[in-house]
Amino acid sequence: MLGAIEAGGTKFVCGVGDAEGSREMVVVSTGDVATTMGAVCRFFTDAMERHGPIRAFGVGSFGPLELDPASPAFGRITTTPKPGWRDVDIPRWLHSAFGLPVAIDTDVNAAAVAEAQMHGVDQLAYVTIGTGIGVGLVANGCTQKGMGHPEAGHLLVRRFPSDTGFAGVCPFHGDCLEGMASGPAIKARWGTSLDALRSYHPAWVQQAYYVGQLCASLILMHAPERIVLGGGVMQQECLFPLVRTATLQALADYCANWNEDTAARCIVPPRCVEPSGLVGAYLIAEAECSRPSNLEYLV
Amino acid sequence: MLGAIEAGGTKFVCGVGDAEGSREMVVVSTGDVATTMGAVCRFFTDAMERHGPIRAFGVGSFGPLELDPASPAFGRITTTPKPGWRDVDIPRWLHSAFGLPVAIDTDVNAAAVAEAQMHGVDQLAYVTIGTGIGVGLVANGCTQKGMGHPEAGHLLVRRFPSDTGFAGVCPFHGDCLEGMASGPAIKARWGTSLDALRSYHPAWVQQAYYVGQLCASLILMHAPERIVLGGGVMQQECLFPLVRTATLQALADYCANWNEDTAARCIVPPRCVEPSGLVGAYLIAEAECSRPSNLEYLV
Repeated sequence: MLGAIEAGGTKFVCGVGDAEGSREMVVVSTGDVATTMGAVCRFFTDAMERHGPIRAFGVGSFGPLELDPASPAFGRITTTPKPGWRDVDIPRWLHSAFGLPVAIDTDVNAAAVAEAQMHGVDQLAYVTIGTGIGVGLVANGCTQKGMGHPEAGHLLVRRFPSDTGFAGVCPFHGDCLEGMASGPAIKARWGTSLDALRSYHPAWVQQAYYVGQLCASLILMHAPERIVLGGGVMQQECLFPLVRTATLQALADYCANWNEDTAARCIVPPRCVEPSGLVGAYLIAEAECSRPSNLEYLV
Repeated sequence: MLGAIEAGGTKFVCGVGDAEGSREMVVVSTGDVATTMGAVCRFFTDAMERHGPIRAFGVGSFGPLELDPASPAFGRITTTPKPGWRDVDIPRWLHSAFGLPVAIDTDVNAAAVAEAQMHGVDQLAYVTIGTGIGVGLVANGCTQKGMGHPEAGHLLVRRFPSDTGFAGVCPFHGDCLEGMASGPAIKARWGTSLDALRSYHPAWVQQAYYVGQLCASLILMHAPERIVLGGGVMQQECLFPLVRTATLQALADYCANWNEDTAARCIVPPRCVEPSGLVGAYLIAEAECSRPSNLEYLV
């Protein structure tokens, strides 16, 4: 049995079980660090009494995270604006409490791992469009990390031709992808969320234009076998055909592999039933069990 | 001893030796397929008489290439506009002539492998800016491939604010990165190459703006430890500081790891002395020797 956490800015989803399914799950709302991590650790302690021992923990966390194994700050949340969470080391909390191996990656990279397994591919992009826009990438079967980790939600996009008056909501870039197409951007521009707008409202085509530009850039930069689009905004299923069309328009027949059929098969909603990030956390915990731990420094 | 080819649209650079250096190199200009491959095979036959047997071949080739090992067309050049070279299968030519293992990847992916080894990193982007713009990527120590391979030279870029009159030269996208910042784009816009323009000519800052946008997108999408900028256009060394500044401006302090020091250390010219693509071809040949061949179908 494994322990998994999808650690988000508003809630921590915790589970025991494995990637096939959780035996038990709990949601802890994200408050101050000590209260939140206290509640998380109590859940795992209690769950072990009911279900037996945990072999390892996997964490898919909000970030940015330090993921360079050579860094003394490995596993920490770094420059988050979330009060109190800067420099928090979730793996260390878990390791101190339970003395077990802990693996960590970004929430979106964990989700990408889960979706890659569900789709049976090794090259995949997972995109979540909600309060922000996050992108997790699996390349050659491993999550994409290097100097930092991908932050493709902040891609600089071209503006939709008629979209000239809106400055965008990203505090760093103004009109980057997140600034133009996240949930808060949609609300700031139209005064409501997409689902409250009629199907012929220009908001839909405009939203698809931006998401399609991200998909085209992912194809040109990453050559994914699947692009999985999740998050609250993408729960509007009617966005998918519009996004596929916008993606192909942006590629302009340059990539021979991409046509209507490919787009229908490869630009898709998430397949995981439980949250993809939680399923991914089980998978990275499992992988951690099968290799020498890189977390000796935690002891 | 290994055999290596950097196969380009104007010339094939062939060598025998290993990634430490070639014992002998030859340049064959790219003509019709039979003449070109005939000359290439003669070189390797003669070189083996002088230097002894070759264990395997590595090819870094122009493309697009089919790199899906499950495809019957694996190893072929696909939709190239180069007359006569569509569907050409360089590995099959070599295998028919010599009966040895052959590994193939794109020219830019091979170059990325070589530069990753030179820099001692596993996450790297190699960019060449010349007749076209090509990008090779190493992720987790392997080259980036999936559905197709990266074609990040065709990234859709934002225009430099004052760059309004020029339509771009890309036959697919017009004003994508290659359409705006390749050698032919520079010539079409300014009537000359960059090196003929004075240091205060606006062409320099504009060129750096586009290349910096590529670097920022690579950082956001790929988190490379190094971005290596090569090719004829980047031989103008004074572009490097301008590109670094443009990259940081595009990121707008979003990526905590990237500052002036990182940019100076990580956005750099190629380190390989021999062509990076040739060195990479030796490295992929070497890797091919150490695993079961996936080229049985060639027999």
